[in-house]
Amino acid sequence: MRNVYMNGTFFTMDSGNRIHETGMLIEENGTIQYIGPYAADQLTEHDHIVDLKGKWVLPGLVNTHSHILMTILRGIGDDMLLKPWLTTRVFPLEAQYDTEIATISAQLGVLEMLLSGTTACSDMFNPIGIDVDAVMDAIGATGITGAISHTIFSFGSEQEQRANLQAAERFAKNYKTWADGRLTTMVAPHSTYTCSTQALVESVRIALDHKLMVHIHLAETDHEVEEIQASYGVRPVEHARRLGLFAQPTIIAHGVVLDDEERAILSACDVRVAHNPISNLKLGSGIADISKLLDRGIKVGIGTDGVASNNNFDMFEELRTAALLQKGLYKDASKLSTPQVLALATRSGAEAMGMPQTGSLEVNKHADFITIDPSNKPHLQPVREALSHLVYAVSGRDVCDVYIRGKQVVRNSHCLTIDAEKVISEANRLQRKLKW
Amino acid sequence: MRNVYMNGTFFTMDSGNRIHETGMLIEENGTIQYIGPYAADQLTEHDHIVDLKGKWVLPGLVNTHSHILMTILRGIGDDMLLKPWLTTRVFPLEAQYDTEIATISAQLGVLEMLLSGTTACSDMFNPIGIDVDAVMDAIGATGITGAISHTIFSFGSEQEQRANLQAAERFAKNYKTWADGRLTTMVAPHSTYTCSTQALVESVRIALDHKLMVHIHLAETDHEVEEIQASYGVRPVEHARRLGLFAQPTIIAHGVVLDDEERAILSACDVRVAHNPISNLKLGSGIADISKLLDRGIKVGIGTDGVASNNNFDMFEELRTAALLQKGLYKDASKLSTPQVLALATRSGAEAMGMPQTGSLEVNKHADFITIDPSNKPHLQPVREALSHLVYAVSGRDVCDVYIRGKQVVRNSHCLTIDAEKVISEANRLQRKLKW
Repeated sequence: MRNVYMNGTFFTMDSGNRIHETGMLIEENGTIQYIGPYAADQLTEHDHIVDLKGKWVLPGLVNTHSHILMTILRGIGDDMLLKPWLTTRVFPLEAQYDTEIATISAQLGVLEMLLSGTTACSDMFNPIGIDVDAVMDAIGATGITGAISHTIFSFGSEQEQRANLQAAERFAKNYKTWADGRLTTMVAPHSTYTCSTQALVESVRIALDHKLMVHIHLAETDHEVEEIQASYGVRPVEHARRLGLFAQPTIIAHGVVLDDEERAILSACDVRVAHNPISNLKLGSGIADISKLLDRGIKVGIGTDGVASNNNFDMFEELRTAALLQKGLYKDASKLSTPQVLALATRSGAEAMGMPQTGSLEVNKHADFITIDPSNKPHLQPVREALSHLVYAVSGRDVCDVYIRGKQVVRNSHCLTIDAEKVISEANRLQRKLKW
Repeated sequence: MRNVYMNGTFFTMDSGNRIHETGMLIEENGTIQYIGPYAADQLTEHDHIVDLKGKWVLPGLVNTHSHILMTILRGIGDDMLLKPWLTTRVFPLEAQYDTEIATISAQLGVLEMLLSGTTACSDMFNPIGIDVDAVMDAIGATGITGAISHTIFSFGSEQEQRANLQAAERFAKNYKTWADGRLTTMVAPHSTYTCSTQALVESVRIALDHKLMVHIHLAETDHEVEEIQASYGVRPVEHARRLGLFAQPTIIAHGVVLDDEERAILSACDVRVAHNPISNLKLGSGIADISKLLDRGIKVGIGTDGVASNNNFDMFEELRTAALLQKGLYKDASKLSTPQVLALATRSGAEAMGMPQTGSLEVNKHADFITIDPSNKPHLQPVREALSHLVYAVSGRDVCDVYIRGKQVVRNSHCLTIDAEKVISEANRLQRKLKW
């Protein structure tokens, strides 16, 4: 069946950032067949028509760096730097995980993402103690798209490290294409400071063998740079490059601490950057200079990181913070303009993740889109400067409907694919089992 | 009648930031009679009991710098520096104002404030072309508390400037205490770059004669500092001090561009600072180093500025941004801790505004408080780390109930004192009359 969505204002986020004020989108089999102004000649008598009058329609948001399995840890460890936060809070709590905790945590995370307008994410999870297939089943059933990646760490005995790599390779093979093709995976060495040289080299081999992207935390803090320099005599980007890490398309999370030489390497190797402005501030890592990355043509997406360092998955808040920080950093209000930052959170993020079939409303792309109804919301009034409101006034809480590949997953702010009440109740019950 | 609010988690924001998990608040005649853990012996048989089970209760938020009459201008002029934004967008649009536009704009602004949990504001409005008494009547009827101040500018002919000062003094006299004592006013010279020396001296005289606080934009941009230095040979803070501006308690908006000497002056003169982190970023002004202000014991509050440079009145987003920026600026995650920043947006903001009777839940203070119901909100789950969520995960959209002096003004996210539908419809109609 063809579904026709009409009368809304469509922010296509195509390369011209075109806006159709009384627009129309026709979807069939999950794909956009038509996007443009209302056109009576496009209609057939069998179409199912949905009236979006007064609503704003835009592509689903793309979160290029998240940790949905950490959602149950929301709010642990405020006011702590990355290193002590990881070693004294995150890792000890993750070590207590079981499959049930991981599953509920992932569902709670995706529930929040969908309700706040995110339709694609590039996620990285810690596999310790969990049956990954059960957790993946639950994620697949939510309807979200993106890449869910199995972290590689060099923790524990040699045997444990070998088992971790073997599990990662098995995962890479099994989850390259899954959930009806909505989801894929990347090879995810955690970082240069938690992975041995061997683990990084082996990660590259897995990525090459299975033709997968690489997702890694890189250049996040001054401390990391000092540590890698002390161990290997070079900064993290050069260390990664020497080990061949950028042989496959790679997305690095953070990129806060970079010099010009490193930016040149990233550009030359087509490395993409997931910018996580709120997490970078909250953990005291600093402000990533993404203006310089964009000037070099590096693909940049926006990410939230996990909610233990954010503490929500609201991509609207995240993209707004990204724009504000560049303006503040340069004391130049023209930096990262309104359409530009909205593109980072949609089209550019999708390109950075290697998913160019989503992130904008264009013919032949997936019908991944969201609606916002400003009509009874004072903070979105008057409605005239809607594009500005999408960047500077909207909250994820304002999202009304969410469609992924044409299928509605959120209706009037209620998620249709996840039992919210059960997941919330279970998340609270299971969290109490953790030694906090 | 005594109203007893019980079973919620009460974040008192008193000087010890005490939290009562199964707490109780008793209000009578708009004043808090009891706050603490549930205590059966405090109850009498005639009490009206309100069960807040599962809800979080905190003092109403205090917005120390706003421009509610500009609300109809939401979203004008993104990506512009302060000076061209003011001269090519704000002032030409404000010049077209009439009483109707000003009134609806103010009501829309207060509507958004109340719905997002703000119970007190220190506001500054441009009086050009409007019947101020009619606008004040409308603001008074909303139930909000705070100070609404009449801007003094040195624009136009000598006669116009004289008329502006006379109107400001008349306003100061009439609105020192109004709306049942809920509202007051301050003397509000716009800035050192829009006010002549004479206008600033006269502002001081009015403040002293009527025993009112002063509210002024100061030290906002590098450009301002250069301009004042070129004109007067000193930086803005010293210029203001020499003219006697700090003789009465003064709250300066912004304080972005300050050196140590200026911070010493502010501290010595008990000048308070309204920190507007989002507006300062958006207009490319920079990041105010409020850590240094706090280290000197200067009273700091949080403000949103107007929605034409923000673009909303969400104080939760604002206080979160304040905390994040200090952590990022110093690359130190311990800066501006979770309870500390929540205090800035409540108790400290109230003190900075000279309204110590609000901003915390303490006996004998006004019963100005708000509730948040996390129960069906995935982004506030699990609920255990509620204090963290209040700073890092909540949106103004999550506010459920708002009480000012014991009177409920928002119930279940609906405003009881303002006709939201009418105000929204009128705001859109009236905005179309402005030459955009």
